Amino acid sequence: MRPQLSLAVLLSLSLVGFSASTAEARSELARAYRVIASKSFIDLTHSFGPQTPVWSGFGQAKMTPAADPKTHRPYTIKEDGFRATLYELVGQYGTHVDPPAHFDEKGTTMDEIPLKQMILPLIVLDDTPYLSQDPNHAFSVADLDSWEKKHGRIPRGAWLLLRTGWSKRTDPAYYINLGDDGPHTPGFVKECSDLLARDRDVLGVGVETVGTDAGRAATFDPPFPNHYVMHGSGKFGLAGLCNLDQLPPTGAVIIAAPLKIVNGSGSPLRVIAITPQR
Amino acid sequence: MRPQLSLAVLLSLSLVGFSASTAEARSELARAYRVIASKSFIDLTHSFGPQTPVWSGFGQAKMTPAADPKTHRPYTIKEDGFRATLYELVGQYGTHVDPPAHFDEKGTTMDEIPLKQMILPLIVLDDTPYLSQDPNHAFSVADLDSWEKKHGRIPRGAWLLLRTGWSKRTDPAYYINLGDDGPHTPGFVKECSDLLARDRDVLGVGVETVGTDAGRAATFDPPFPNHYVMHGSGKFGLAGLCNLDQLPPTGAVIIAAPLKIVNGSGSPLRVIAITPQR
Repeated sequence: MRPQLSLAVLLSLSLVGFSASTAEARSELARAYRVIASKSFIDLTHSFGPQTPVWSGFGQAKMTPAADPKTHRPYTIKEDGFRATLYELVGQYGTHVDPPAHFDEKGTTMDEIPLKQMILPLIVLDDTPYLSQDPNHAFSVADLDSWEKKHGRIPRGAWLLLRTGWSKRTDPAYYINLGDDGPHTPGFVKECSDLLARDRDVLGVGVETVGTDAGRAATFDPPFPNHYVMHGSGKFGLAGLCNLDQLPPTGAVIIAAPLKIVNGSGSPLRVIAITPQR
Repeated sequence: MRPQLSLAVLLSLSLVGFSASTAEARSELARAYRVIASKSFIDLTHSFGPQTPVWSGFGQAKMTPAADPKTHRPYTIKEDGFRATLYELVGQYGTHVDPPAHFDEKGTTMDEIPLKQMILPLIVLDDTPYLSQDPNHAFSVADLDSWEKKHGRIPRGAWLLLRTGWSKRTDPAYYINLGDDGPHTPGFVKECSDLLARDRDVLGVGVETVGTDAGRAATFDPPFPNHYVMHGSGKFGLAGLCNLDQLPPTGAVIIAAPLKIVNGSGSPLRVIAITPQR
């Protein structure tokens, strides 16, 4: 009987060990969730509709009542109990994500993004002091150096956002023209994009303007240098963000979970920041 | 000098207090983030494209290359450095959210959802043992009672998902017909929806099928009783989920952050679960 007894004891001990570690894992996640839920959530997303400013090379979205494919009659709550909407829009609309596939034939598409990249540490660079001196200023390697002297090195794999205040501008003309004849929207100097993508190895960069390149992008070689550098290095972009003035330079967490679109080259998404404050 | 000195001391003390609590808040969030990031993430989202099964009362999505509005020439990476997609789809497509506005004229639209409802505790009911006995089984109040006896009362404000195994079925016919002449897709008995919405006060219910109602919904009064009850009570729906067999009954956390669409009555979204396991 003794060997069997020992086996039973061993088995029950290992079961106790398993339950204990399961219970521990559960309470560890529950505690982390309670902390997260107690913090301030900041919406970095504009609401979007047919009037939302869009790059002039694309067009406005259409949103019309969805209809029965047989009768073409739009569904209504009164007659059918429900309503639904047919959306017609370009992916790069409203607050949106640019995956590498937007600029790179072989780049990551939206259905291929690893889940663990959807909740990440958040770095916020403040371009507003430079822009108040020179509205044509582009964020440079020297500006990044000066930020890192103050706040420490940009951590690998983080999302990096560029605060410019442009999300508060109400004139759509400010957003929609990325050509060299239009307003000089802020952005990065190519060398700074290079450093962020290749050396600091950020997941990507996000901006308040309608695209991740400065308005003078067409005068640069290559055109759209930030898109070119980021997506060519497997990095992402977030455009049309807001409320960046409510974020600390470091210490916040970002949730940005793109739609799982087959071959997806960009689409609107919801972007939320969780800040250390309650 | 004494009063000024005291003031200075008081000021510096309060500054120390402020820094300490700021630093504490930062490290509290950083710790919670490290725990979250160490856990298993489960994708509850199907990838979606033009072939994705959709309810027969709607139509397939179209996804075509976005074109220059002036020349109508589609953008290509070869000629333009980038590509983009024009999406035409009904909101209730792929893995999607139904907000109250889908069935209720005055219901919450997608741009009105509080941020704190986008990351929540997750409850998973297992319908598969009942369905293996009777493929026409609908989840009932008695089934819920029996679940609660085992796992405790459904917590207020949680997301509640119904595991049925239907996301593994590859025949689209199983998904697309919600009429009483079609396959008997699983769902809730109306009294169970009532109890969950009005008494347990869940945020909403999510399912593996194409809609949150059972396939016999049209034989019920009112039709689509789960939609009717949930949305009429300000509750949400998630449809077309997958991987529910990888979730524990309690203890996981769900991230479901809908797009911020003006007057939005439903749209695809990314849904992720974080489980206690590493």
